[in-house]
Amino acid sequence: MEKHGHLPHVVIVGAGFGGLKAAARLRGVPAHVTVIDRSNHHLFQPLLYQVATAGLSPADIAQPIRNILKRNENTEVLMDEVTGVDVAARRVRLADREVPYDYLLLATGATHSYFNHPEWEKFAPGLKSIEDATTIRRKILLAFEAAEMEQDSEKRHALLTFVVVGAGPTGVELAGSIAELAHRALASDFRHINPQGARILLLEAGPRILASFSEKLAAKARRALEKLGVEARTGAKVEQVDAQGVLVSGERIAARTVIWAAGVRASAAARWLGVEADRAGRVKVQPDLTLPGHSDIFIIGDTATLNDEAGKPLPGTAPVAMQQGRYVAAVMARRIAGKKPLGPFHYVDKGNLATVGRSYAIAEIRKLRLSGFVAWITWLLVHILYLIGFRNRILVLIEWAWAYVTFQRGARLITKGPGS
Amino acid sequence: MEKHGHLPHVVIVGAGFGGLKAAARLRGVPAHVTVIDRSNHHLFQPLLYQVATAGLSPADIAQPIRNILKRNENTEVLMDEVTGVDVAARRVRLADREVPYDYLLLATGATHSYFNHPEWEKFAPGLKSIEDATTIRRKILLAFEAAEMEQDSEKRHALLTFVVVGAGPTGVELAGSIAELAHRALASDFRHINPQGARILLLEAGPRILASFSEKLAAKARRALEKLGVEARTGAKVEQVDAQGVLVSGERIAARTVIWAAGVRASAAARWLGVEADRAGRVKVQPDLTLPGHSDIFIIGDTATLNDEAGKPLPGTAPVAMQQGRYVAAVMARRIAGKKPLGPFHYVDKGNLATVGRSYAIAEIRKLRLSGFVAWITWLLVHILYLIGFRNRILVLIEWAWAYVTFQRGARLITKGPGS
Repeated sequence: MEKHGHLPHVVIVGAGFGGLKAAARLRGVPAHVTVIDRSNHHLFQPLLYQVATAGLSPADIAQPIRNILKRNENTEVLMDEVTGVDVAARRVRLADREVPYDYLLLATGATHSYFNHPEWEKFAPGLKSIEDATTIRRKILLAFEAAEMEQDSEKRHALLTFVVVGAGPTGVELAGSIAELAHRALASDFRHINPQGARILLLEAGPRILASFSEKLAAKARRALEKLGVEARTGAKVEQVDAQGVLVSGERIAARTVIWAAGVRASAAARWLGVEADRAGRVKVQPDLTLPGHSDIFIIGDTATLNDEAGKPLPGTAPVAMQQGRYVAAVMARRIAGKKPLGPFHYVDKGNLATVGRSYAIAEIRKLRLSGFVAWITWLLVHILYLIGFRNRILVLIEWAWAYVTFQRGARLITKGPGS
Repeated sequence: MEKHGHLPHVVIVGAGFGGLKAAARLRGVPAHVTVIDRSNHHLFQPLLYQVATAGLSPADIAQPIRNILKRNENTEVLMDEVTGVDVAARRVRLADREVPYDYLLLATGATHSYFNHPEWEKFAPGLKSIEDATTIRRKILLAFEAAEMEQDSEKRHALLTFVVVGAGPTGVELAGSIAELAHRALASDFRHINPQGARILLLEAGPRILASFSEKLAAKARRALEKLGVEARTGAKVEQVDAQGVLVSGERIAARTVIWAAGVRASAAARWLGVEADRAGRVKVQPDLTLPGHSDIFIIGDTATLNDEAGKPLPGTAPVAMQQGRYVAAVMARRIAGKKPLGPFHYVDKGNLATVGRSYAIAEIRKLRLSGFVAWITWLLVHILYLIGFRNRILVLIEWAWAYVTFQRGARLITKGPGS
């Protein structure tokens, strides 16, 4: 990779919420920017559960990174996989080349954690990528197809039992959406089974669901889930996951479809840098989001950990990543321009949203608490607004309007997946 | 499978254009109908090339079969694979069960033919299913990504060379669409390559492209292709296909992406029935579309061959399959009702359409010949009309309107495919 005259070279690894916001903020800055991602597209993760439950198509929530950044004349995009970072030589190692940097931003996100049981992964897929979502979609739809032809009533029952492990917002949204898919969209499509008899369990090891919300709001959401036909269980610790189902607090539940929404662990950034990490693999960063001892290396989003002013670690959510991305780009821009440095990063709490089915949600923004339809409209508007790309916004609005009126799911495709 | 009282049991294998039209026509008929397909969705094949060139999402052109037929109370849908037919016992063999029939309709379509070179298939995918389309899409988009990072100019040139083998409507539509993708949609997205320099070749072994159209119209289409930047070559026989490209009439063309649109061969129906087939594996059927000697077995669409009144074999197109599907269902309905039998099948020529890029097409309906924008509007209306599902029609219209105005392609996703 040739050097660009005297321009400093900024390398951004990861084009999720954090990396993309940083790249956007660096437009027009006198630097050469290289964005590296192993995927060609930026993914709007909050709506992945909709792809997993056949409500939206993958391309509705994804956009090619180089297309988003095409008007950033100082920026190029490489689709490649990072294997390590040579901190001393200031180079990023890819599969078959090295990229030198003056400033490095690692925004590589998180992946699933199976609490020291990596063997559970093949029975209980998580939801982090488009492939994860279509894999889960295929599992769910195939379970109904197989049940339609299954003569044995015990096996049929297991096919029509769906378990979601982990009752944070992702688990709650998945469980609510599967319940609606089974109890509404698929209701008249079968002749030998009644999809409305499908059993959806949401298992949470902690004392309550939606622990990041206030108790009252979380309780309202739980009631809404139960109205949708989801059985939520708290204090339910998963002890085993296999092809037949799960073992929960000593009880065996036969379920063909188990989905993992329970734990995250950071990407390999800490390993690449050869530094210490917390239990989830996150790198502890300075108040200005740099790696201790290396003011030219920034780490943001789910791969970093930083405490807020109250001493609580910042959550691994999109608004945090986006604000951090914008912040570090501003820090770099000021340094490049020789200006006075910015103060430490300060997160402006944008609140918390979770949706339960088609028309119920809970929203918490500092002291303001909303639930029900009003919260759901808020959820809808926020997600449409932050979705990148005019075309995507129109398509998603139409798909949702159609689904809302007809109770149908438009993307009920079973396609062969990777390795199958 | 239990018998349904005294109702005759109609089994339809294949839910493409032919099978689905037959099932639709059998609604309300006093029979029990079972539709069997190895896929859960009905696919609108004429628009597959749009998925392959990142213009539409798979779910825009597919619809779950059991959803289409859900209001047919006498009909059930099984997602399973047929392995054979026991003609004497009148049973269809599936993976792990048998389905008895009183009337059997085989509408299983066609697959690709590599002219006795099955080893070419892994280098030159065809376009018959959603998986085919996303595989081709991935190949095309990855070729540009790899070219962006390729330092060696010869390798880069091969990455930016695309070969389509076979210049029937499918090959022409694919080549034109790839040309537009490269020369318009991707034009500003790269920094080290110029996608407008991509080379698209369309190879036809015969003396002219679009042999099923009149010479003048085909010549117009060829000029339109050349204006789009496609190099069409006739009398060009492919002698070898491998990982580096193709060997055509003695000349080596280095191309990373080769797509097969050159030959079809029928599904395994003839083998299942243990009967003779023509060179392409099609079963020669009676004038009433039954298997000779078996008036309870009907074969339609690309898996059958029948001559029209002029002695020419009917083409393997959607209108033929649809009319045959409706006809055989009517034959069965009349027999079940004890009515006088219908006459032989008569195909009403609905004409021929092929599109070249965004706003040019050729259309031939008996003596009427159209070309250019008028033909393209016709093509658009016909395809929207025949697309199943109100939601799909709206989405496709919007995707096309957006693409038309912005020159962009909305479904530019690279996802991991089967076995990768």
